[in-house]
Amino acid sequence: MTDCTPVHTIRDGVYAASLTPLRGDLSIDHAAYAKHAHWLLQHGCDGLAVMGTTGEATSFSIAERQEALERLLIEGLPPARLMVGTGCAALPDTIALTRHARANGVNAVLTLPPFYYKSPSDDGLFAAFDQLIQAVGDTRLKVYLYHFPQMSAVPFSNALIERLLTAYPDTIAGMKDSSGDVHHMLEVIAQFPRLRLFAGTEQYLVDVLRAGGAGCISATINITCRLTQKLYRQWSGGGTFMLQQQITGIRRTVETLPVIPALKCVMAQLTKQTAWQHVRPPHVPLNRAGTEFLQKITQQVAQSL
Amino acid sequence: MTDCTPVHTIRDGVYAASLTPLRGDLSIDHAAYAKHAHWLLQHGCDGLAVMGTTGEATSFSIAERQEALERLLIEGLPPARLMVGTGCAALPDTIALTRHARANGVNAVLTLPPFYYKSPSDDGLFAAFDQLIQAVGDTRLKVYLYHFPQMSAVPFSNALIERLLTAYPDTIAGMKDSSGDVHHMLEVIAQFPRLRLFAGTEQYLVDVLRAGGAGCISATINITCRLTQKLYRQWSGGGTFMLQQQITGIRRTVETLPVIPALKCVMAQLTKQTAWQHVRPPHVPLNRAGTEFLQKITQQVAQSL
Repeated sequence: MTDCTPVHTIRDGVYAASLTPLRGDLSIDHAAYAKHAHWLLQHGCDGLAVMGTTGEATSFSIAERQEALERLLIEGLPPARLMVGTGCAALPDTIALTRHARANGVNAVLTLPPFYYKSPSDDGLFAAFDQLIQAVGDTRLKVYLYHFPQMSAVPFSNALIERLLTAYPDTIAGMKDSSGDVHHMLEVIAQFPRLRLFAGTEQYLVDVLRAGGAGCISATINITCRLTQKLYRQWSGGGTFMLQQQITGIRRTVETLPVIPALKCVMAQLTKQTAWQHVRPPHVPLNRAGTEFLQKITQQVAQSL
Repeated sequence: MTDCTPVHTIRDGVYAASLTPLRGDLSIDHAAYAKHAHWLLQHGCDGLAVMGTTGEATSFSIAERQEALERLLIEGLPPARLMVGTGCAALPDTIALTRHARANGVNAVLTLPPFYYKSPSDDGLFAAFDQLIQAVGDTRLKVYLYHFPQMSAVPFSNALIERLLTAYPDTIAGMKDSSGDVHHMLEVIAQFPRLRLFAGTEQYLVDVLRAGGAGCISATINITCRLTQKLYRQWSGGGTFMLQQQITGIRRTVETLPVIPALKCVMAQLTKQTAWQHVRPPHVPLNRAGTEFLQKITQQVAQSL
C-alpha cells in the first residue's frame, strides 16, 4: 500500500496560543494543561499553538518545555493539531526543541528568530534558520516563522522570507504575524501566496481570510474560542459585524491589562481552578482591581461557550 | 586560624567582556578560550566578564556555558578574577547558571533580567531576582545587575535598584551600565554609592572613576586592555587626554562595524588563530572590506601591547 497520508497535517482555522497553567511552586500543572488543551479543541479551536509567548515558553527551561509536550501527547492531544513553539535565544536550544517536536510526531513548529541580539542582519537570521533546518534534517518538518516585532524585537523582513522560501520551499510553511499590523499581514499574503499566514489576533481574522490567509493564532482565543470559531465559519456569508465587534471588544478589554495574567484570571474565574492563579516572573498576577474589572469579561465568555 | 578571606574578591578596575573563540563547527574552542583569558589578565585586565553579550553567551546552551566556565577554571583562571554572565530569558536557567558559578568558586555573577517579555513591571523583575537569590541561597553570592537597555530591552529602573538593594544589601553588589549614557552612570553612582558601578565602555572610565565608580567592563577591552589599564593607573594624575583619545578612537572605529565579528577579526589578525574566524548566528563573520578596514586597528593594538 502506498502511504497517502499528507505530510502537512496542520489545518487552517482558529488556533489558541495556549496558556500554561502552573502549580503554586510555578512548575507546570500538566494535568490542568492537558485539560485546558482538550477543552480548547472541544470549544472551537482547530488547533493549538503551545509554548508560544502566551504560554510563557521563554520562562521555562528546555527540559520543562519538552516534558510539557510529552505530557500533552500522553494525555491524548493529537500531534496533528499542535504547533509547538521552538524558538530560543540560543540556536542549540531551538534545534533541540525542534528535533524533540519531530521525534514526538509533531510536524509544525512556530519558531522565533534568535532574539537576544538586536538588529541582526538577514544573513545572520538566514544562517540561523538554515542551520536549524539542516540540523533537524527531517522532510516532514514544517516551520512557521514567528513574526512578533514588539516582543522579539527581531522582525522577519520580506527579503528574508523570500530567501528562506527559495532555499526551503517544502519546510518554510507559514507565518504567525503578531505585528498587529493588518497591512503587513496583507502584504505578506500578497507577496508570498505559498506562505500560510495566520494573523496573531482574531481582530484581523476576516481580513486575512478574505486575502487568502490561513486563519489566526491568538492569546485571547483561550477565551474567545467559541466566538472566533463561529466567526471563522460564518464570515464568508457576511452578517458577522456584531460578532466581530464582540470578539474585538473582549480582546481590547483584555489588552488594557497585562495580557497573560489577565487571561489566566478569566480562566480562574471560569473554572475555579487554582492552577490559573500563577504566572512566572517577570509576569505577576493581577491585583484585585484588575481581577474585579475582568468579571464582566468572564460573564461574556461563560455565555458564549 | 580565623578565615579572614574577604567574601567579596572581585577588585575594581579594567575588565574585558571576553570574546568566546569557536571551532569550525561553532563549538567553543576551550583551549583558545583559556589562552585568551590568560592573555587578557597578563595584558592589563584586572578581571574578566565571561559569558556576557560580547561572549555570545545567549547563543550557547546552558550545558555549553557551564562547560566553558569549568574548562577555564581547569586551565587555571582564578575564580576571584571572573565575573560570570548568568542571566537568561528563563529564570530556571538563570538559577542553574548562578548555582553552577557558586559551586565552582565564583562569587560574582553578571545577571541580565529575564529579557524576552518587554515592559515587565518592577514587581515582576523584583520577583525574578528575589526568586533567584532565594533559590541559590548562598551568602557568598554577589550579583551585578546587567543594565543594557539597547540589547536586553529591559532596563533596571532606579526604583527597582533601590528595592533590590534594600532587600539584599549583601548580595546586590554592583552594576554593569552598558547604556552608553554617562549621565545615567553618574546618576546611579550618586544615588546608590554602595553599588559598585562599572561603565560598559572604557570611553567613560575616567568619568565613572572620578564619581566614585568601580571601573569598566567592555567588549573593546579585548583589544584595548593594555591602553585601558594604563589609563586606569594614570587618570588621577591627569595628562591622559591623548591616551583616552586613542582608546576612544579604537572603540569608535570598531563600533562602525558589527562589534563581535569586528573584535574577533582583530584577534584573528593579531594571533593568526583560526579560532577567531567563527561566530554563531545571528552574527556573521565580517566581509573582506571590513576585514581590510580593521588592519589599521590591529596595527595600533599590536603596538600597544
